[in-house]
Amino acid sequence: MPAALIFDVFGTCVDWRSSIARAVAQALPEVDSTAFTDAWRGEYQPAMERVRSGGRGYVPLDDIHRENLHCVTPCFGVSAGDGLATAWERLDPWPDVRPGLAALRRGYILAPCSNGSIAMLARLARYAGLPWDCILGADIARDYKPKPRVYQASCAALRLDPAQVMMVAAHNDDLAAARAAGLRTAFVARPTEHGPDQTSDMAPSADWDLVVPDFEALASRLVAG
Amino acid sequence: MPAALIFDVFGTCVDWRSSIARAVAQALPEVDSTAFTDAWRGEYQPAMERVRSGGRGYVPLDDIHRENLHCVTPCFGVSAGDGLATAWERLDPWPDVRPGLAALRRGYILAPCSNGSIAMLARLARYAGLPWDCILGADIARDYKPKPRVYQASCAALRLDPAQVMMVAAHNDDLAAARAAGLRTAFVARPTEHGPDQTSDMAPSADWDLVVPDFEALASRLVAG
Repeated sequence: MPAALIFDVFGTCVDWRSSIARAVAQALPEVDSTAFTDAWRGEYQPAMERVRSGGRGYVPLDDIHRENLHCVTPCFGVSAGDGLATAWERLDPWPDVRPGLAALRRGYILAPCSNGSIAMLARLARYAGLPWDCILGADIARDYKPKPRVYQASCAALRLDPAQVMMVAAHNDDLAAARAAGLRTAFVARPTEHGPDQTSDMAPSADWDLVVPDFEALASRLVAG
Repeated sequence: MPAALIFDVFGTCVDWRSSIARAVAQALPEVDSTAFTDAWRGEYQPAMERVRSGGRGYVPLDDIHRENLHCVTPCFGVSAGDGLATAWERLDPWPDVRPGLAALRRGYILAPCSNGSIAMLARLARYAGLPWDCILGADIARDYKPKPRVYQASCAALRLDPAQVMMVAAHNDDLAAARAAGLRTAFVARPTEHGPDQTSDMAPSADWDLVVPDFEALASRLVAG
């Protein structure tokens, strides 16, 4: 059994797409909020890739979301204040997440291993009721997943070997990188993260150590009695 | 009002001396547990000073406590396993700490800004019931208080200006360093941290922003209604 569980957050713990679309609809009622949300999020991987590749020093995800917001607004013929970028601190958890984490916390150290910053994840944890023991991930590694150092730095911060830590994610590429770094892996299906027409990550792509439908099932597998 | 409160832990939140002496008495019944505890802790500042001065790269406090343990045992004619060093993860909170932090958490982000590591402080938080939003301090700065970068890195991780953050400590030198880094300051008296004959830090040595007898009084001053 692992000693700690570390979690992807955006998509795995929280439904970012519905929550951001709701914030966009409030702040920019004149735009198609879902299209805007997808366009905003569309800039996410390219912006992180500039950091991963060394083309840009580490900048926290808060700054990347804010920059990307102002990159996207002209395409929709609008402008937005910086405040909208903090909507990433107010994302609703999937319904199974709070009861699942509460049960898991009885047996394991729990922490996010996310590309979000400590500031973003601490505020999101309050909003969404996520009972983390500490916050790991990009900020302590000063790099972005799926770079191996993010998983390795997160295990090292807990003073655990990677084999004592299980990465929980809804994304196969995240789990592949975690496994390559020596961690255990658990896949949780989130088939509507990207909306009703999602095609990616509908099922596990490898023999992950655990494959579960949600966090309550994960707790049933990992917490005795 | 500040947006976040960050806390010294050893001495300010927890009674390390009584708790360590109890663990020493269990592990090494043949020694004077209080004298052993004071000798072990006596190596703490010199060992951190080697890191602060640049004579040694950053090593987490867990390693320093373990090294110091094995440095002290021969003086008492005994030897101890590494397990005793993890006693620093099982320290009792002062009686006002849990109710005080529970009240403060309604209005503020709360985090330790300690020389302990993320691993040590996360496990200690579980043992002592400390409801931190995230864990800041030495590990994220890779240096030890009272170096200014430890306070600065802790504020930066919260994406707050130092003036938006209040440092809470029972040690005047900690507060002096925090004030020099631009933070607000609150002094909490812990007149028995070092036992009944304590002479240091019996009273505030400067006009700290708040001076309170305990965490419940701090909550009364900072949380409305």
